[in-house]
Amino acid sequence: MSLPHTYDWEKLQSFCREVFIRAGVPADRATTVAESLVQADLRGVESHGVVRTGIYLKRVEKGMMDPHAEPTFVSEHGSTALLDGSNNFGAVVGSYALDMAMERAKQYGTGVVGVKGSNHFGTGAYYAKKAIEQNLILLVMSNASQTMPPSGGIRPFIGTNPLCIGVPAGEETPFILDMATSVVARGKIIVSAQKGEEIPLGWAIDKEGNPTTDAVAALEGSVLPVGGPKGYAISMFIDILSGVLTGAGYGQYVNNMYENWDEPQNVGHFFIAVDISRFIPLELFKQRVDLYIRQIKNEPKAPGVKEILVPGEIEHRQTERLKREGIQLPLKVVDELNDIGLKYGLQLSEAAIQNAPVIESSQT
Amino acid sequence: MSLPHTYDWEKLQSFCREVFIRAGVPADRATTVAESLVQADLRGVESHGVVRTGIYLKRVEKGMMDPHAEPTFVSEHGSTALLDGSNNFGAVVGSYALDMAMERAKQYGTGVVGVKGSNHFGTGAYYAKKAIEQNLILLVMSNASQTMPPSGGIRPFIGTNPLCIGVPAGEETPFILDMATSVVARGKIIVSAQKGEEIPLGWAIDKEGNPTTDAVAALEGSVLPVGGPKGYAISMFIDILSGVLTGAGYGQYVNNMYENWDEPQNVGHFFIAVDISRFIPLELFKQRVDLYIRQIKNEPKAPGVKEILVPGEIEHRQTERLKREGIQLPLKVVDELNDIGLKYGLQLSEAAIQNAPVIESSQT
Ligand SMILES: NC(=O)c1ccc[n+]([C@@H]2O[C@H](COP(=O)([O-])OP(=O)(O)OC[C@H]3O[C@@H](n4cnc5c(N)ncnc54)[C@H](O)[C@@H]3O)[C@@H](O)[C@H]2O)c1
Ligand SMILES: NC(=O)c1ccc[n+]([C@@H]2O[C@H](COP(=O)([O-])OP(=O)(O)OC[C@H]3O[C@@H](n4cnc5c(N)ncnc54)[C@H](O)[C@@H]3O)[C@@H](O)[C@H]2O)c1
Repeated sequence: MSLPHTYDWEKLQSFCREVFIRAGVPADRATTVAESLVQADLRGVESHGVVRTGIYLKRVEKGMMDPHAEPTFVSEHGSTALLDGSNNFGAVVGSYALDMAMERAKQYGTGVVGVKGSNHFGTGAYYAKKAIEQNLILLVMSNASQTMPPSGGIRPFIGTNPLCIGVPAGEETPFILDMATSVVARGKIIVSAQKGEEIPLGWAIDKEGNPTTDAVAALEGSVLPVGGPKGYAISMFIDILSGVLTGAGYGQYVNNMYENWDEPQNVGHFFIAVDISRFIPLELFKQRVDLYIRQIKNEPKAPGVKEILVPGEIEHRQTERLKREGIQLPLKVVDELNDIGLKYGLQLSEAAIQNAPVIESSQT
Repeated sequence: MSLPHTYDWEKLQSFCREVFIRAGVPADRATTVAESLVQADLRGVESHGVVRTGIYLKRVEKGMMDPHAEPTFVSEHGSTALLDGSNNFGAVVGSYALDMAMERAKQYGTGVVGVKGSNHFGTGAYYAKKAIEQNLILLVMSNASQTMPPSGGIRPFIGTNPLCIGVPAGEETPFILDMATSVVARGKIIVSAQKGEEIPLGWAIDKEGNPTTDAVAALEGSVLPVGGPKGYAISMFIDILSGVLTGAGYGQYVNNMYENWDEPQNVGHFFIAVDISRFIPLELFKQRVDLYIRQIKNEPKAPGVKEILVPGEIEHRQTERLKREGIQLPLKVVDELNDIGLKYGLQLSEAAIQNAPVIESSQT
C-alpha cells in the first residue's frame, strides 16, 4: 500500500469514532471506544490500540456485541454496586462502572463496582488516568478469555487477566501499574515466530506442557503466568473478583472475542476507587508520592542502567512523544483501517501526517 | 541440646502466650500474638512462626514496641477508617484493623482500613482466615523494611511487601493467596549459603547490582522482586497504599526490626474487606467458587505433575498434618525458646510431643 504509516492521534481518533458512528454506534459511545483505542496506541500498547477496530466492528455486525444496549445497575448498596453491561462495548461498560466507583468513593470513601455482561475493555490505564484526574486511587482488573494454564497445567484455563493501579502524584508522573498477569504479552511470541527467533525459557509451554524455546510450539501451547504460582494466583484471584463474584463468565465461560461467534463474551471487571482525603490530606499525599518517586529514581543504578523508572513512566513519555510525532501503524493495520474506511466512506489518509518519515514500525 | 524437636501446636501456643504475659503483655494481646505465630508454623511458613518470639520480646524489652498502648482510630468516614497502631504488636494492630474492616464491610458493602504506627504483622493469611470465617473476601497488604531494589537498582529500597487475598469456598479449601513480592523468601538463600550451594540466576543480585548465582554474594546484595518490573511495581504499590497513604513509614522510613534500636518500625498496612452478598447470594458464590476450583484441579497436567493446586491448598494440608503430627522446630529455635522459657520460669518441654521421632527438620 502507498498509504503513509504515521498518523496524527486526534485525527486517527476522529476517524475511528466516525467509523463506529457510521456502523451504528451512538456518538457518545463511539467517542469512548475510539478514545480508549487511540490512548492505548499513544501509550505504546499497540496490541490494544486501533488494531482492534476491525474485530470490535465485526462483533457488532455479527450481533455479538450490542452498542445500543443500556448498561444497568442491578444492585446498589452503600459503597458497592453491581453493573450488568448488557453486552455493550467493554470500554463503554467500563466507563459506566468507573463513574459509579468514583461517585461512591466520594460519598463513602471507597467505591467498589463489580461488572458482568461486558466485553474486552482495552487497557486498565484508560480508567486509571481518569480516576487520577479526579484525585482518586484506582484498582481495576478484568478477566479475559483463556490463554494461560494454571501452574502444573498444560492448556489455557485462565486469561492474562490484567491488573491496573493508578495513583496521583504532585509534580511527578503519576504511578500507573498496568500489567497482564503473563510473563510477556502473547504478541511478543508472535513476533519471534515471524522472525524465526527462539524465545527465552519460561515464557511459554508447548501443547504437551513442556517448557519450550520454540516460538511456533509456544503459540500452539500457552503463555505462562508471571512469576510462576504467584502470577497464576493473582490471575485466578482477578477471575474470582471479576467473574465468580459478579456473575460474569470466568475460566472457560469467558468467550474468545476472535473465535466464538455464537455468544457474547460475558467478560467481568472489578473497580475499586479510594478517596485519598479520607486517609490523609490530598496535598500532603501528593508531596509524599513525589518524594517517594524522587527517592526511588535517585537510587544507585545497576551496571548498564541509565535510569530507574516508575511504573507508567515509559508509557507517559511515549504518549508525549507520539502526540508530537504521530502514531506509526504497521502496514497490516493501515491496510485494515483503510478497508474499513472505504466501507464507511471515510479517508484514513486524512488522518495521516503526510510529511512524516516512513520508518519501519515495530509490531510487538 | 537434648530437648525434643516436635511440639504440640496448642501447647506451643500456650507456652508463647504465657511468655508474652510474663513479659508484661496484656493477656488478650498475648493470645493474638501467640496465635499468629503458631498459625504461621502450622501453615509451614516457619520464617513467620515462633522463631519470631525472641525478636518480638526483645523489641518490647528495649522499648521499641509498646504492648500497653491503645491502637486508636484517628478517622472514620463511611466505608473507610484510619488506624494509628500506637506501636503495639503488628498482630494486635492488624487484628483491630481487620475487625473494623469487617464491620464496615457489613455496613457499607466494603470496609477499607489504612494503618500506620504498626509493626511486623506476621502472615497475611492470619487475617484472611478470620475474614473467610465471616464469609468475607479480604485483601490485605503490608509494607516492610527495605530488602529489594527497584528494577535497575542495586540496593534495597522497597520491602518484600506481602500481598494476601482470601476467598471463602463452599466444600473446597478456601482460596488463600499469601505471598511475598520477592522471587523467593530471603530464607531460601540463607539455606543455600549454609549448604554451599548455588542459587538460580534471577533470585538475587550482588552488592554491585550484578545478577549472581553465589548465595553468599546474594546475601550481601538484594533479593529480586518476582517477575521483574511487575513484582517491583506491585511491591511499590503496596508501599504506597500501606505507607504513603496512611502516614506510616515507606521505603527507607520503615525501620528494620532487627537492626534499628532507636525507633519503632512504623510499619503500615492496608485492609480491604468485601461483603460478597452485595454482589451475589453467598451460597451461589460458594457454589461457583467450588466449581471453579474443581474445574481447575481437573485440568490436564504437565509431565511429572501429580496435581494442580489452588493457592492456600499446600498450607491448608500442612496445617492439618502438623496439627496431628506436631510442629518440628529447628534446633536453633528450640534453644532460643528454651532460654526464653528459663528466663520466665516456663518449661518448653511441656509443649513437646515426647514420643515423636526426631527428624532433621528443614529450615527454609
Ligand atoms: N483487556 C484485557 O483483556 C487485557 C489483557 C491483558 C493485558 N491487557 C493490557 O495489556 C497492556 C500491556 O500489559 P503488559 O503486561 O504487556 O505490560 P508491560 O509488561 O509492558 O508493563 C507492565 C507494567 O510495568 C511497568 N514497567 C515496565 N517496565 C518497567 C521498568 N523497567 N520500571 C518500572 N516499571 C516498568 C509499566 O509501566 C507497566 O505499568 C496493559 O495495558 C493491560 O491492561 C489487557
Ligand atoms: N509481614 C511481612 O512483612 C511479610 C513480608 C514478606 C512475606 N510475608 C509472609 O511470608 C509468607 C510466605 O511468602 P512466600 O511468597 O515465600 O510464599 P510461597 O511462595 O510459599 O507461596 C505464595 C503463594 O503461592 C501459593 N502457591 C505456591 N505454590 C503453588 C502451586 N504450585 N500452586 C498453587 N499455588 C501455589 C501458596 O499457596 C501461597 O498462597 C506469606 O505468609 C507472607 O504473608 C510477610
